[in-house]
Amino acid sequence: MAASPLLDTSRLCVHTITTQPWPVEEAIERYVQAGVAGMTVWRQALTGRDPARVGEQIRAAGLSIVSLCRGGFFPAPDPAGRQAAIADNRRAIEEAAALGAPLVVLVCGAVPGQPLEESRRQIKEGIMAVLPDAERYGVRLAVEPLHPMYADSRSAINTLAQANDICAELASPLVGVAVDVYHLWWDPHLEAEIRRCAQARRLFAFHVSDWKTPTEDLLNDRGLMGEGCIPIRQIRGWVEEAGFSGFNEVEIFSNKYWAMDQQEFLQAIKTAYLRHV
Amino acid sequence: MAASPLLDTSRLCVHTITTQPWPVEEAIERYVQAGVAGMTVWRQALTGRDPARVGEQIRAAGLSIVSLCRGGFFPAPDPAGRQAAIADNRRAIEEAAALGAPLVVLVCGAVPGQPLEESRRQIKEGIMAVLPDAERYGVRLAVEPLHPMYADSRSAINTLAQANDICAELASPLVGVAVDVYHLWWDPHLEAEIRRCAQARRLFAFHVSDWKTPTEDLLNDRGLMGEGCIPIRQIRGWVEEAGFSGFNEVEIFSNKYWAMDQQEFLQAIKTAYLRHV
Repeated sequence: MAASPLLDTSRLCVHTITTQPWPVEEAIERYVQAGVAGMTVWRQALTGRDPARVGEQIRAAGLSIVSLCRGGFFPAPDPAGRQAAIADNRRAIEEAAALGAPLVVLVCGAVPGQPLEESRRQIKEGIMAVLPDAERYGVRLAVEPLHPMYADSRSAINTLAQANDICAELASPLVGVAVDVYHLWWDPHLEAEIRRCAQARRLFAFHVSDWKTPTEDLLNDRGLMGEGCIPIRQIRGWVEEAGFSGFNEVEIFSNKYWAMDQQEFLQAIKTAYLRHV
Repeated sequence: MAASPLLDTSRLCVHTITTQPWPVEEAIERYVQAGVAGMTVWRQALTGRDPARVGEQIRAAGLSIVSLCRGGFFPAPDPAGRQAAIADNRRAIEEAAALGAPLVVLVCGAVPGQPLEESRRQIKEGIMAVLPDAERYGVRLAVEPLHPMYADSRSAINTLAQANDICAELASPLVGVAVDVYHLWWDPHLEAEIRRCAQARRLFAFHVSDWKTPTEDLLNDRGLMGEGCIPIRQIRGWVEEAGFSGFNEVEIFSNKYWAMDQQEFLQAIKTAYLRHV
């Protein structure tokens, strides 16, 4: 059953990367003016800034901090590379704690030519290595399964079933999943796996955008909601039936949208959110 | 277990689209000179020609005709569109029979925005509608699952499990699957599903190419075998352990390779085939 239309923007969160031409200070101001309620902060938005100070600015403006994007990229061909990845994920957790973000989203990683099974083993080891840090800071971690077109170099976790499996193996209340419609909409097991992760109380985040026909770039040609073929409202229905009541996060990578006036783009996001999410 | 290296080109088949700058007559001549043993003919290679005559030329040159590409694209928003698709698939079966191709490969189709379940239902209906033609001409049909990045507009069948399911429902000895490493390499259930389709004697075709990092175009940037991250030899091992002994078909869509000297490209295919398939 599809969800009812959203009547307001009280659960609308926007990722800083969606409007990346704006420095984070401008994004805060513009989001608040537009009635956006939450912000997910990408780490590059913090470059040259004190995360604790940025966190204060976001909260002072009245926005909720939904998550920090992103940790992950655990696999590497050599132990030194894997240790460096673990160290970087520890920094991400510290940054999230300083910022006041309750969640770090993990794009888990893959190494071209390395067997996917080996990458999955390294991902599990990497998450286990940083779990004590997550516990210490009280920061949760969300495994985000990525579309199979990113299995070469970005993530060896490509379905929600795989994300659920790794969470079940890790068996920590701090490790859950992020459901992104762009990555998962095609999967015939999506509804069942959403129920599975919700039953285990590990549905930590819900991301929306759309899949355009044609898609001209594998990475940076995502569509605004309603512009493509993803049954977003139906998937939101599944997520909410499973008990999720968190933010609907708009995460759009788009050379086309980054090139346009960001204020107009933000208004278009708001309109598309109310019409199509 | 990975397969042993191939020692000769006696099971090497090349798709006419792989060397599409060549008219089919030139492709026949060049393939034979290079020691290629089989040819899969794309329908556009037959434009303006009599399929029976082209079939005679291919056989007279000593090449095996492996399949005709492609039928499918059954889903449409309206009944007239679906009837037109069925009529076109009947023509494809007739062309295959005239050519002397024992198999038509089906790229099953999808309609942007139409629920994938509905497209799958229309695919099943479409195949059922043309089955009497397949029986009459003794031509087999191979459902080719396509990578999930084509779920918007090219195929609502995106895993080998789905292809096996639809074949099991149709329950005809004339309907099987084509396993293409480019579409399926990322799937954690691939080995098990290859066993399943082989046990049911429905593994009809095996296609190879490679997945490059980065991939710059969703459609026409496939790699030569060895150029990317797909464990081709391992997958060939699964296919052969399951009893497949047919051709290894090289199907590469690549703006880059189509722009180069096709004779040099064919030599590169042969070298890559012996080293990496």
